[in-house]
Amino acid sequence: MNDAFSRRADRLAGELATAGPDDSPVDSLLVTNLTNVEYLTGFTGTNGACLIGSESRLFLTDFRYAERAEEIDGWEVRIVSGQWLEGLAGELAGTVGFEDDQVTVRTANQLREAASGAELVEAGGKVELLRRVKDDWEIQRIAAAASLTDQLYGLLLERGLTGSTEAELDGWLTGWMRQQGAEPSFPPIVASGPNGASPHAEPGPREIRAGELVTVDMGVRLDGYCSDCTRTFATGAEDSLDDLALEIYEVTLRANEAGLAAVRAGATGAAIDEVSRAVIREAGYGENFGHGLGHGVGLEIHEAPRLGPSSKDELIAGEVVTVEPGIYLSGATGVRIEDLVVVGADGVDRNLSSIPKKLTFA
Amino acid sequence: MNDAFSRRADRLAGELATAGPDDSPVDSLLVTNLTNVEYLTGFTGTNGACLIGSESRLFLTDFRYAERAEEIDGWEVRIVSGQWLEGLAGELAGTVGFEDDQVTVRTANQLREAASGAELVEAGGKVELLRRVKDDWEIQRIAAAASLTDQLYGLLLERGLTGSTEAELDGWLTGWMRQQGAEPSFPPIVASGPNGASPHAEPGPREIRAGELVTVDMGVRLDGYCSDCTRTFATGAEDSLDDLALEIYEVTLRANEAGLAAVRAGATGAAIDEVSRAVIREAGYGENFGHGLGHGVGLEIHEAPRLGPSSKDELIAGEVVTVEPGIYLSGATGVRIEDLVVVGADGVDRNLSSIPKKLTFA
Repeated sequence: MNDAFSRRADRLAGELATAGPDDSPVDSLLVTNLTNVEYLTGFTGTNGACLIGSESRLFLTDFRYAERAEEIDGWEVRIVSGQWLEGLAGELAGTVGFEDDQVTVRTANQLREAASGAELVEAGGKVELLRRVKDDWEIQRIAAAASLTDQLYGLLLERGLTGSTEAELDGWLTGWMRQQGAEPSFPPIVASGPNGASPHAEPGPREIRAGELVTVDMGVRLDGYCSDCTRTFATGAEDSLDDLALEIYEVTLRANEAGLAAVRAGATGAAIDEVSRAVIREAGYGENFGHGLGHGVGLEIHEAPRLGPSSKDELIAGEVVTVEPGIYLSGATGVRIEDLVVVGADGVDRNLSSIPKKLTFA
Repeated sequence: MNDAFSRRADRLAGELATAGPDDSPVDSLLVTNLTNVEYLTGFTGTNGACLIGSESRLFLTDFRYAERAEEIDGWEVRIVSGQWLEGLAGELAGTVGFEDDQVTVRTANQLREAASGAELVEAGGKVELLRRVKDDWEIQRIAAAASLTDQLYGLLLERGLTGSTEAELDGWLTGWMRQQGAEPSFPPIVASGPNGASPHAEPGPREIRAGELVTVDMGVRLDGYCSDCTRTFATGAEDSLDDLALEIYEVTLRANEAGLAAVRAGATGAAIDEVSRAVIREAGYGENFGHGLGHGVGLEIHEAPRLGPSSKDELIAGEVVTVEPGIYLSGATGVRIEDLVVVGADGVDRNLSSIPKKLTFA
């Protein structure tokens, strides 16, 4: 594993020559966003920063994390005592790129004042670009998170939906995740009947009845990495669901499968979105799919790339993205079907969501 | 209620003459921090901004929130179409103070470029200062959140602790909060036996046994406002707890009561902390209380003022703060007792935490 970490820092160091504004060179990059720090070092405390030069790997934290910092291989560790920002500034020299999309104006002003010998220049987003492509170790972790989520879907179907409120199911799902040593990667969505018409419905006191659709969107964060999966289930007897519900389920499933078939390295987020969206539009529900098709998943539940009508992101092999078309009928019902997949050179390399997509009556 | 909102905006407008750097005047204040926007308008979407001049009250959001924005009384609503930052910048003129402690360097640069007719100057922290003092409406909401938390403490004691794992209790507590339409205001802490020695322990797979101390620190967010309360319980028969555990409980309780007795408008956070800390120090446990005494609570679980050894904040009547001393014995056990109180002119105006503090065997 430590090799994977040091390769990440080496790749970042390889970009110093063009990391500054207008591709200008910098002497070092200061990484203060904690998710990016975790990506480079594995460190998970609340205060830490990386300073990366062509040969140097400096990790800074405060006294609370002195012990934990010793476990970070390949980095020179500096414990900053006293004022954090001043201690950090004291290490800066030459042209230093900083994460201008993360650092506030106030913090940048304080750093500039304290680091009199250095020139601070805007250089945000570099680690996020590296993070797009997952290495094998990361894919294993995301797959483990997806597998735990699938297990929970199985338990949910065994438990049954009818007669519970959305909020009860939400509490039950979240409680199980925590018992497994995981966290929800975002607050679970349990949207029943008309509530399914809102893509981001919050679980409420509504009791789930027979003969309706229930959309469940959930994932876990396990060992730092996130999963994300949506299924829409039906309740009651198989003949209790109306034709409209059956139809939008069938259309959404075809849109999901078309989207999956379009995923491949080199395709743009807009092109993949359009393949899936066309299925929904041609079925007459184009106005009822108001969000983008998907997003990258990793240390964060939403990260680059983006799959949507205006996305110019070109997929790269090794990215992990969601494909989640939906149809939302205001006041009536809704469907969303979401898989989490690894992008391959010629198509989906691996679908990490194993729960069946044929309409299930729970 | 709308009166309370407009009074908040009026108070902010009253500070324009000195809101800029070195108390310089600004023509208007741009508020983009969403918690601050919620405080001023009640708006709870993911995209919104306030622009406040001496007479003008402009609220900006995007098309998704057009309907919800109509409910905001007393503000001229502008729906920004197209690029959000450019639409926002188009409204700026004269000297505009912005929240430099919230806005990133990149966003500030983009705003400055797009708002050619305006001068943007640093003016962060103004709304946070207003937020310190709660009005009656806010205190009612915080009290309701505290009351729900107290109800949950009662249910937890009925349920019992022994034989459950920390993670099971955590899931159970969180599930109940959600069933009530609330959210945890932070992930609950359930720290049993030796885990109680860590102030920020995360609930784990450890099974709670008889004859030990269990610290539970939790709160809810209800209708936007947070609560926060800690109790340490004992498990098993009354004679099963060792003398050391009984002693540190007794000392922590005296420190809690001394801290509460020192709370009053005009006292500094450092002075109140010292009164409570002295009790623990004089009992010989000064090294075992490694955090500050408390913090403000409101729309956020941690907000100004701060009660701690280095805090220069002077309390003001109407603030809502925690008083939470603790003793942590590494490898052995720990105690923390936390109340949430309203600051009055001559002392605690109201203690919002009603759960008894005499050691309870659960």
